[in-house]
Amino acid sequence: MNDRIEALRALMLSKGWDAVIVPGTDPHGSEYPALCWRQVEWLTGFTGEAADVVVTADDAGLWTDSRYFIQAREQLAGTGVSLHKTRVPEEIPIPEWLDRTLPEDAIVAYDSLCFGASSIGPLPERLSVVAVKDLLGAIWPDRPPIPQTPVFEVETGESSEEKIAWLRARLEDNGCDGCLVTALDEIAWLLNVRASDVEYNPYVISYLLVSTDRVKWFVLKDSVEDPQSGETFAGLEDQGVEILPYASVDEEVESFDGELYSGPDLIAPRKAVKNDFEIRSLREAHIREGVVMEKFLYWLEKSLDAGHRITEWDASVYLGKLRAEIGDYLGDSFETISAYGPGAALPHYRTPATNAPVIGETGLYLCDSGGQYMSGTTDITRTVPVGECTPQEREDYTLVLKSHIDLAMAVFPKGTPGCRIDALGREPLWKAHRNFGHGTGHGVGFLLGVHEGPQDIRQNLNPAPLEAGMVVSDEPGIYREGLFGVRHENLLLCVDDGQSEFGEWLRFEPLTLCHFDTAPVDFRLLERAEIKWLNAYNEKVFTTLAPLLPPEIASWLRGKTLSSAIV
Amino acid sequence: MNDRIEALRALMLSKGWDAVIVPGTDPHGSEYPALCWRQVEWLTGFTGEAADVVVTADDAGLWTDSRYFIQAREQLAGTGVSLHKTRVPEEIPIPEWLDRTLPEDAIVAYDSLCFGASSIGPLPERLSVVAVKDLLGAIWPDRPPIPQTPVFEVETGESSEEKIAWLRARLEDNGCDGCLVTALDEIAWLLNVRASDVEYNPYVISYLLVSTDRVKWFVLKDSVEDPQSGETFAGLEDQGVEILPYASVDEEVESFDGELYSGPDLIAPRKAVKNDFEIRSLREAHIREGVVMEKFLYWLEKSLDAGHRITEWDASVYLGKLRAEIGDYLGDSFETISAYGPGAALPHYRTPATNAPVIGETGLYLCDSGGQYMSGTTDITRTVPVGECTPQEREDYTLVLKSHIDLAMAVFPKGTPGCRIDALGREPLWKAHRNFGHGTGHGVGFLLGVHEGPQDIRQNLNPAPLEAGMVVSDEPGIYREGLFGVRHENLLLCVDDGQSEFGEWLRFEPLTLCHFDTAPVDFRLLERAEIKWLNAYNEKVFTTLAPLLPPEIASWLRGKTLSSAIV
Repeated sequence: MNDRIEALRALMLSKGWDAVIVPGTDPHGSEYPALCWRQVEWLTGFTGEAADVVVTADDAGLWTDSRYFIQAREQLAGTGVSLHKTRVPEEIPIPEWLDRTLPEDAIVAYDSLCFGASSIGPLPERLSVVAVKDLLGAIWPDRPPIPQTPVFEVETGESSEEKIAWLRARLEDNGCDGCLVTALDEIAWLLNVRASDVEYNPYVISYLLVSTDRVKWFVLKDSVEDPQSGETFAGLEDQGVEILPYASVDEEVESFDGELYSGPDLIAPRKAVKNDFEIRSLREAHIREGVVMEKFLYWLEKSLDAGHRITEWDASVYLGKLRAEIGDYLGDSFETISAYGPGAALPHYRTPATNAPVIGETGLYLCDSGGQYMSGTTDITRTVPVGECTPQEREDYTLVLKSHIDLAMAVFPKGTPGCRIDALGREPLWKAHRNFGHGTGHGVGFLLGVHEGPQDIRQNLNPAPLEAGMVVSDEPGIYREGLFGVRHENLLLCVDDGQSEFGEWLRFEPLTLCHFDTAPVDFRLLERAEIKWLNAYNEKVFTTLAPLLPPEIASWLRGKTLSSAIV
Repeated sequence: MNDRIEALRALMLSKGWDAVIVPGTDPHGSEYPALCWRQVEWLTGFTGEAADVVVTADDAGLWTDSRYFIQAREQLAGTGVSLHKTRVPEEIPIPEWLDRTLPEDAIVAYDSLCFGASSIGPLPERLSVVAVKDLLGAIWPDRPPIPQTPVFEVETGESSEEKIAWLRARLEDNGCDGCLVTALDEIAWLLNVRASDVEYNPYVISYLLVSTDRVKWFVLKDSVEDPQSGETFAGLEDQGVEILPYASVDEEVESFDGELYSGPDLIAPRKAVKNDFEIRSLREAHIREGVVMEKFLYWLEKSLDAGHRITEWDASVYLGKLRAEIGDYLGDSFETISAYGPGAALPHYRTPATNAPVIGETGLYLCDSGGQYMSGTTDITRTVPVGECTPQEREDYTLVLKSHIDLAMAVFPKGTPGCRIDALGREPLWKAHRNFGHGTGHGVGFLLGVHEGPQDIRQNLNPAPLEAGMVVSDEPGIYREGLFGVRHENLLLCVDDGQSEFGEWLRFEPLTLCHFDTAPVDFRLLERAEIKWLNAYNEKVFTTLAPLLPPEIASWLRGKTLSSAIV
């Protein structure tokens, strides 16, 4: 690691740069950058998702937030790179740190390829700033190539031509002549194409330039040799899409004749509202996944009852195997979190492939997983008892379920942003002086990212309203360091709930279908309406999934879903 | 009215102005401007609180929001002034309207005395803009003088010197040499002085210039002749406050040697957090007011039972009389809303002094009132049945009470802004597809404005956190046009609720003490916790107030506050 930083310092010396900024984003602002763009990881060894690095002649620092403090400390040990905490009161952001550290006439170079998508603020005006495209290129000899996997068309209920026409109308509204789309999920959505270039996300690494009369797609063309890609490209060309080399985007943008749109994201809010086809597909995806989850939970319970030794990793592998048996499965939508006891206390726990902890005989096991299917993207968390639970485990389990239910039952006026109803999914925890440090809900794409905007349900005051057709997760939790963790997550579809003299109304409908285990529930902590919701949900899970399950699992599920308390 | 607009047009013609903007604010950004600054009212006849006016050679328009649409239509009829709706999707704000309406080289004059405090956005750059101090002065011959009433000192638990020292420390933090305080409530708070210059608000019309080593108070000095004011002024001078003529503020500010602070309001967030003295005082004020309210509700019920004819105005007058009997009463904190039936369906109803509606024999009566006492500022709404209620009245009454209780019971982490818990006070209504068009809660001052910031509990995404020591109202409602209205309002004190491994916690404690009538409550709509809260609150009201009430009222209150449902 130190060699790489030293190589960078040698480059800095030869160029006369006093500092170099390497942002932790890729050119497309992706959640999961390809290996070739994991510059921070290559330079420092840190594998977390959100970190920026600054290197000077005698210092090197990595800026990241609380989700990664522990991981950063471990991974940076011995590298000479120090950790700078962000989103803490004492935070010193990169611009300020540079201002404090660098001499008057210093020169700062940054990697311009990725910087546009990063959130590093404006640099102090006194510094000379040099934008260098692909700054690490010169010192990263064995850099992996940009991935290119077979590109295929997908059915989404709306043709690419219709989407492009819609976008052009928006550009016209804004008095613009074109727009450059860099976000990979937006390109995939606009063109109805998918691939596997990015881990967990079915995207094609590319740029798209949409103007009044042309559509130019900048994509790695080597894959044209793959027959499926060739067919997809040909189909798009028939629709008038020009297919151009990925690397030519810069010169095309520079020579663009007209005004390019640069306002707030036009595509994300439209993409987030699923159409009828997508909603129908998603319902099917969730039924198939419900079958997988019930088979998984049945297997887990029976195997543990039989005294088998099962590690967190074993369980994760078994679940992956079941998921892969679904016909239209393309891959997971993120890395499965399979965690028993203390592991589950880390919301972003990474289940180790080797020496994974064994699932014990008491307490709670948590599994957070999701799939990419041709019929949609899923994300589900279930926490289940694997034996006796302590009173604290039962209480936390119940309060998290109560919170989950309260949010799922919410009814709210049209125009309400998620931040205004986040407290509904927290108040039962707050009343017991408990809380969790992540969002309650994130948007979910259709055969796209498992995290998508603009909507979310969290404490940040994001003004984007929830709209009928949007999908959000509902995933409150409680995490007891060193002990256990509880999280209950369904995906919810936001649906129209009619209108009254007081306005128009929205509510949620769970898409996810997998029972909540009522064994650890302390029913004294639930109100009547919550118990009613729970019983009705479990009943719906049973009636929907039982016909699709082997008889012994259907019968087991019957037992799991019988109403467990008199309402 | 038309004469005044014509006089303005003549002035415009002589000056060469194409348009004039008259903002609906006063120089101090007051909620209740003095008569001399009610420029919009003088010019158009519109008496609502929030409106700006634009006059051109052949057009005149008034911009206001939905609270005042009906009132504006009525009051503007025949004036030639047209209504422009704000805060609606089709809104055309003043700057845009000017841009659409005026010729290329137009000149716009605005009243600079009041404009600073207004929220009119920046004007189109193509227009020439002229700032005219006191623009209407030339055409308003019989303009009332700036009010000046006796100025007196108040005990607030913290000396003026301490407050000034605190402010100076903040100025130093910000690298500034001084600040000009224009908000009247902030001046009153800083100097511990009060008067009655402003309706409902015990303020002294003045400016305050605080610098590193001097405090200059710009105030109308004629009142020095009043002995109380003279004593107050002398006391302040002893503390080093320089007392200067109100009109000299401009030249003092212009000649100020140093940098004046111009960042976000420093004083409001500090002032909003009540100290121990203020909290103790407030508790006393609310006990006294509770006694008044119980006497009032007893009188109302008994009088109506006896078949007396009582109008809304009669009730308002009787309540005012009871309030005035309190020793430290200075006046009302706003105009009492005394409303029966359809009147109560208007959240900002104005009870007419003549020909007021008679309170009927069935349904609901609503009374929203408050006082300015030496011991603090209050604000309370009670809705009570005056006879049989319809099922809809009972249901609305219960759901509003449920919402009120849910917010009052909230527990939330330190740092939470009110907008994040607003939904707790609405969800019971939302579930029934009902809602209300005003905020759920506003901050309340200590012997200051009944509305104060920075905190509130409403749908706007105001990031100001609720803090221990802040006072907010909790006042959900339902309004049925032409039928009736329900609002239940207590003032809540935000208090520390300890800490846990998950952080520090806050909750509310009701300051207001007056029973909620349980007769119209449909207990099937309340959860156990809500009924428990209601019974405990009513019990506390009884035990606190009964010893201070005449026996017959205490005994009546016993009946009103007995637990009404088995929990």
